[in-house]
Amino acid sequence: MGIEYAVGVDFGGTSAKLGLVGRDGRILGRDMVEIDPRADFRSIMASVSGRLTELIRGAVPDGRLLTIGLGTPGFVDSETGIVRSGAENIPALKGMSMSAALGETFGVPSFADNDANCAAAAELSFGAGRNFRHFALVTLGTGVGGGLVQDGRVSRGARGFAGEIGHICLDPHGLWCNCGSRGCLEQYASAPAIARIYAERKAKREMAVGEPTAKDVFRKAEEGDAEALDTVDDVARSLAQAFGTLLNVLNLEAFLIGGGVSQAGERLCAPIRRHLPDFTWPLLMKDVRVLPAAFRNDAGLLGAAATAYERISR
Amino acid sequence: MGIEYAVGVDFGGTSAKLGLVGRDGRILGRDMVEIDPRADFRSIMASVSGRLTELIRGAVPDGRLLTIGLGTPGFVDSETGIVRSGAENIPALKGMSMSAALGETFGVPSFADNDANCAAAAELSFGAGRNFRHFALVTLGTGVGGGLVQDGRVSRGARGFAGEIGHICLDPHGLWCNCGSRGCLEQYASAPAIARIYAERKAKREMAVGEPTAKDVFRKAEEGDAEALDTVDDVARSLAQAFGTLLNVLNLEAFLIGGGVSQAGERLCAPIRRHLPDFTWPLLMKDVRVLPAAFRNDAGLLGAAATAYERISR
Repeated sequence: MGIEYAVGVDFGGTSAKLGLVGRDGRILGRDMVEIDPRADFRSIMASVSGRLTELIRGAVPDGRLLTIGLGTPGFVDSETGIVRSGAENIPALKGMSMSAALGETFGVPSFADNDANCAAAAELSFGAGRNFRHFALVTLGTGVGGGLVQDGRVSRGARGFAGEIGHICLDPHGLWCNCGSRGCLEQYASAPAIARIYAERKAKREMAVGEPTAKDVFRKAEEGDAEALDTVDDVARSLAQAFGTLLNVLNLEAFLIGGGVSQAGERLCAPIRRHLPDFTWPLLMKDVRVLPAAFRNDAGLLGAAATAYERISR
Repeated sequence: MGIEYAVGVDFGGTSAKLGLVGRDGRILGRDMVEIDPRADFRSIMASVSGRLTELIRGAVPDGRLLTIGLGTPGFVDSETGIVRSGAENIPALKGMSMSAALGETFGVPSFADNDANCAAAAELSFGAGRNFRHFALVTLGTGVGGGLVQDGRVSRGARGFAGEIGHICLDPHGLWCNCGSRGCLEQYASAPAIARIYAERKAKREMAVGEPTAKDVFRKAEEGDAEALDTVDDVARSLAQAFGTLLNVLNLEAFLIGGGVSQAGERLCAPIRRHLPDFTWPLLMKDVRVLPAAFRNDAGLLGAAATAYERISR
């Protein structure tokens, strides 16, 4: 009997990353499939399955596939694996369960979850969350995603939709958000928001900045640019407000910062820690950690596999 | 062998309500003990135990005591039962565990939790939460307390301090709160807050109101008083903002309103429901209920017993 492994699929809109993941979180093989947005469901699944079969044959020919996990953006029904939103650009996926189809093809139990919930599962099983039983992961990128771990398990809520930390309301009179509400964290801490806040500050001072990225803003802050430093402080304060609410409500041990923006590391974590006491009880603040997540690009893959491992072990 | 029951103790600062509670939530006997704030720990526990022994002898002489639960205000370490805050007016309780002392005296497992967590346990086991596995209870009274139920269990967080819904930050530039933070829900939805908002509205219009209570405000609203109606709408909107955040993060099925202010019933629940969609995703809103809790005065007693029943059954 060869090595035991899970398949993790990180579905990203028009492509899917495939990974074979050992129980210890080691990636034994990986590949990527482009998905034709006009294809029908059957042919999409055929191309994913085909590529996966080849990957397995090449990487772990004698291995034993235990389970398949799939992570996708948006809302996923965690019982059926049906994607409820977040796959709008591929009409054939509407109302269908990719995870169920893959499970049937490969004859193993299969599961699906939101990509940020998967990222939380990756940190819990293999990453920066291994030593915590109660933590929140926020992923800062194009949007702000979130996953919660309570009592050593990813929280999914009544129908699998829990963890929308990016839509905590920070200000009921704040900016309108894509979700239709106002003042959501996402409007103050996503990569585009960081770039926007910085550009607005510079514009106010009649300084041209072109089209900065969040990464530029952190680099400028490193160089001592006053508007960049103030922008990072604003972003940290917004995150601290959301984290304070989560602490008060859930008595967590740690916050992990993932997604592209997490490359900023201490430059972002330090001011979050500084602001956090303004938004929570001293007793709840005690020993709380704010840390970068362990994974960025592989969070989806590893997390989809970690989710599947967790669910077969229940 | 007689009837099986649990003891529930609802500790309220300078008095403790005692109840004998059957597995079905029936109260088989009850009493109350005044606590002398200057007494030492041993004599406080002796007077509680003595009264409890008499109560048991009178009400269920042939019964079988299974467990003891204790609810207290403030923060309680759910593992040890030590009250970390909320019993400041009785110095002898500092650093001590009343639940451990009672458990030893009566020779049964004993547990302690925050009173709002207990109230959530009461609703889950015997009340308006029986048909839900994921809900929040907020108690609106002198303060705003909260308890969360996820996956059919009261959430306690890392150290038993979870559920501080009253300290969700609604506005980072808002009113200073007793907890040291700003803009907490408690400042906008407790009974004193309701009275204050109404009095401020009347004062702005140069109308005298004396010293209204929250109850007066709801009665005035019933009579069509414009400022009272606006006050109730404000309070409902503040609660909707907090509930929207909880929905986004936890994908709950229901919100239960407890505490004295919950007497307002539909007069308060209806405008909360109306405002809620402004603070959450449509998908997360679907089928969510906003309801009065089943218990008010007995929530503490029943909940302390429900907590103990739940914990011995793990």
